Formats: sequence, structure tokens, C-alpha cells
Amino acid sequence: MSEAAYVAVDWGTSSFRLWLIDRAGNVLGERRSHEGMTAAAKPGFAAVLQSHLEAVGAAHELPVIICGMAGARQGWVEAGYVDTPAQLADILAHAVPVPGQHRDIRILPGIAQRDRKAPDVMRGEETQLLGVLGMDAAGEAVICMPGTHSKWVKTKGATVERFATFMTGELFDAISRQTILSHAVAGADESDDIDAFKSAVAAAFETPANAANLLFQVRSGQLLYGDKPSSAREKISGTLIGLELAAGLAGEIPKAGITLVASGRLQMLYQLAFETVSVPVRSIGAEDAVRRGLSMAAQAIWNV
Amino acid sequence: MSEAAYVAVDWGTSSFRLWLIDRAGNVLGERRSHEGMTAAAKPGFAAVLQSHLEAVGAAHELPVIICGMAGARQGWVEAGYVDTPAQLADILAHAVPVPGQHRDIRILPGIAQRDRKAPDVMRGEETQLLGVLGMDAAGEAVICMPGTHSKWVKTKGATVERFATFMTGELFDAISRQTILSHAVAGADESDDIDAFKSAVAAAFETPANAANLLFQVRSGQLLYGDKPSSAREKISGTLIGLELAAGLAGEIPKAGITLVASGRLQMLYQLAFETVSVPVRSIGAEDAVRRGLSMAAQAIWNV
Repeated sequence: MSEAAYVAVDWGTSSFRLWLIDRAGNVLGERRSHEGMTAAAKPGFAAVLQSHLEAVGAAHELPVIICGMAGARQGWVEAGYVDTPAQLADILAHAVPVPGQHRDIRILPGIAQRDRKAPDVMRGEETQLLGVLGMDAAGEAVICMPGTHSKWVKTKGATVERFATFMTGELFDAISRQTILSHAVAGADESDDIDAFKSAVAAAFETPANAANLLFQVRSGQLLYGDKPSSAREKISGTLIGLELAAGLAGEIPKAGITLVASGRLQMLYQLAFETVSVPVRSIGAEDAVRRGLSMAAQAIWNV
Repeated sequence: MSEAAYVAVDWGTSSFRLWLIDRAGNVLGERRSHEGMTAAAKPGFAAVLQSHLEAVGAAHELPVIICGMAGARQGWVEAGYVDTPAQLADILAHAVPVPGQHRDIRILPGIAQRDRKAPDVMRGEETQLLGVLGMDAAGEAVICMPGTHSKWVKTKGATVERFATFMTGELFDAISRQTILSHAVAGADESDDIDAFKSAVAAAFETPANAANLLFQVRSGQLLYGDKPSSAREKISGTLIGLELAAGLAGEIPKAGITLVASGRLQMLYQLAFETVSVPVRSIGAEDAVRRGLSMAAQAIWNV
């Protein structure tokens, strides 16, 4: 077995992922847990990290590169932001060392768009972007990164020009759990109602202003026509994703289409949604992207 | 003091309002409580009503007219729906008697729009509409009835032609309490930030597709520019109301403008919102409207 060269950590709001990586970029060990920023605050970030480092047998002097909410103000050590237009190489240059540790631990900064008319922030996605584009990217791209807070990013070469965050995932959770629509989705089974999803995407994409009415139709459809809970869930999801696409695709779309950075079910849903509105996508796994980005950072910082 | 002729009750999901009324339509007594449909299910609708009738000293034989969620499937007695296009006089004709009571108690039906592409239902608002328009209305009107589930109604004479429900109020509650934006509004004082509200209305009205991004800007604006909690709250509210107006005003607007049926803070906010997008409104109090509608129903049914 080859020797570990560094440890890469994607530390989000609600999830923690760690990889032990060798000089060639191979993964030698891996950890996942729900000890995200929120949960880690109590036991302390250092203690949580140390327990996972021990679990993968990371040597005492091995350096650790971290991205995500661990660098937020409420996180471990605030890692600030690089402002747009942001060169991805600048992110590495502004990695913040965690003080008082026996090993070299650095946290990557986020990106801020300091535009009074469209203020925005990202933290974690900049590292995925690095993994997707690398530091010598050429040409323009529009990158869609779905999630709790979906990001749509316009890049030129290896520079993030502009971006916008959509609360799509969090709206889905709040609406399907905390409103009258929770009754409409109660008891939904795992079966996907792809037709319901696609027609909801199309409806919201065509008349985005109607979003709050399309959502209520989920209830009316059930009251008047006995629509099923699984179809209700797909309609809520399709309405919110269709609304996001209407805004994200409003600008100029590169001929090559959209780069979609997502995994699992979200990857499937967004691919279906883009298909519904006839926009070609190139799909890249979100987890691969962030690990690649962290590796690029580690290689640049420590020359490992 | 004149003699009571009937009792009028507006029985919603979360509120109960009762008026004791004489032959001339004067209010002799009044009750308000939070024993809406949800709370009344446990003690029983009959018991809740009886306690309030006793509190206002309603005579044993006095008839009671009810509108709202008491007539829903999960309510007291299901009162069904009149379908669109619905003549307001038809609502009176379909009042459903509550069986097994010593007095004559009737519940008014709602209105259903059985359109597979835009299914919709209302229950309670039809009685407000009756109060606003009467049974011999002439001409066309667009009526906006803001609330937990805002209704936009197109009428021709005394007929409800079409309507649409927007989950604006409920979205506001879910978003400001159950998402990351709850941190942005925490500690908001009572002061209104009218400029923040109006510019959020304008932004959502102009680019409704951007709604889920405009909401996230509430957080980014606070992180990057230190925006205040009260301004955050007004921005969420303005974004959702602007989104609703973009859909509601998308069709043809009568020259006379919009009829707004609302009370209190909602009345103030929607009036500001319509002003922001330069649409004239005629404002009518929501509570007066429902009481007038109930009185018309009582007069028609019992000739009181």
C-alpha cells in the first residue's frame, strides 16, 4: 500500500467527509458522518477531526486541507471570502491556517459577490469548481450545482465571474414539511412519478410568476382529483426546480450547454428537468469534484 | 336594544368569529377565538358553537349561518362546493343544514374550479365575495384577497368565473421560521422598513423567476452588508407579495383597477405593493365583507 500524503475534508453545515490521499491522488481511507458545522460546534472541531484522523490511521504530521462551513464565522476558524471576479487560484492563496495545532491544517475561503443589488456567498462550492475546471480552464461555462442552496455560476477561464444562489432544496423541505402540503405528501412511497415531475418543471419554467399558485394546485389536485402523495411530492419538487431553471437559464447559455455538478437523486432530477426544457447538460459527480478540488489545493500548497 | 334575528359565524382553519345580528343588520354581540377548525375538532364543533352562543345570550331558537372550514371534509359537516363559473346566489341555495340540532344551523359551501390544468378551491372567501359584490353586481372585476392562501378572483356580474390561490402567507411563515432565513429575521422589531419592502416587491415583480434567489439575498445582504432583521423580514414579505402580484396582474386588469379585500397589516402591505407597481386599488375590509355576505345569506334563507 502506498503512503498517505495528506488528508482532504469537505466540512459542510450538516455533513462531514474525510479522505486519506496518497501522492498520486488515490484514496487510501474515507470517513463520513453527520458531524457538520452545526453538530461539531459542541464537541469542538479539533476533537471531531482528530477522532476521524485516528480512525483512518493518519500519521501525526500529515497535513489537512478543509473546505466548507468549517471556515464560516460560526465555524472553526473564519476563512473569509475571495471576491468576484474570483480566480480559482486565489482561493488556494488565501487558505487560512488553523492556529495551535501540531499538524498543518488549512481552511479554504469561500467566494463573495459584493454587489449591493445581488449580494451572494458560497462556501464549499468554490472547491468543487476548482475540481471541475482546474486552474487552466479555457472558455466560458455556466455551472449548475443543485442542493439545499443551489448555485448557478458563470465562469470565464478559471475565473468565477458571477453567481446566484437559489434556496430550492431548503424551500422543498420547508414546504413539504411545514405547510398544508405536508398532508398532500404524507405517506408518499419511493416510486417516482416522472410525468408529474416533468409537467411541474415545464409549468413553472413557462410561468415562473405562478409558482405559489402551482404549489397550491398540489393540494387542490388532491382534493378534487385524488392525486397520489408521491405525485404531490414530485410536483412540489418539479415546481421549485422549474422555477430555478427559469432564472438560471434566463441569460445566455453556452453552446456546449450547462455543466451539472450533482450526485444521486438530485443529479437524476436535474438531468430530467434540463431534458424537459431541452437544454443539454454535461454531468459531473459532486463528490468527485470536491475531492479533486481539495487535492489540487493540497498539491499547490504543500507540493505533495 | 333591538332583538337578535340570527347569528353569523366565520369559522376558519385557525380562527372563529361570531356575530349576533338584528333584522336591520346591526351587530348586537360579537365573539372571537382561536377555536378554528383544527382546535374545534377535539371538544366538538357543536360544543364550541354552543359556548359562544351562550356567551352572547343567543335565544334557543335563533338560526345560525356559518361559512368557512367548518364545511370542509375534516370540518363539522361537509358542505361541498359550487363549481365555477359559480353564481354567488347558488352558494346560498346549497347551504347544508347541520343535522340533529335544536336550532336551524346551516353551513355555506365553497367554490371549486374543476379544471385539470388549474384545479383550485376556496372556502370562506365565496362569502366575502358575496359581501363585496352582492347578488346583482354588474361589470367585471379582479379581486385580490390576501392571506395564508391568497385568492385572486375574476368575476363577471355576480358570477365567479375563475380564481387562483397563492400560498403567499403560508410561504412567508415557513420561510421566515423554518429556513436559514430564520436567523436573518431573528430579533426583528416592529418598525417597518417600507423601502426594503417596496424594492423587494419591485424586484420580484420584474423577475419573478428569480424568487428563490431574491430570498437568499436576504441572508447574503446580512452577511456582506449587515442588513437589519426588520429589513430582512420586509424583504421576504415583499419578495413573496411581488411574486404573487406578477402572476395576479399578468392577465387583463379592469380599468377600475383591483378590488383589495383585506384587513390590518395585510391591507397596508398589499396597498403599498400595488402602489409600487402602479396599479390602482379599491380597498374593502375583509371582516366587514364576510359579515355582510353572511347577512345576505341569512336574509335570503330565513327572510329575516
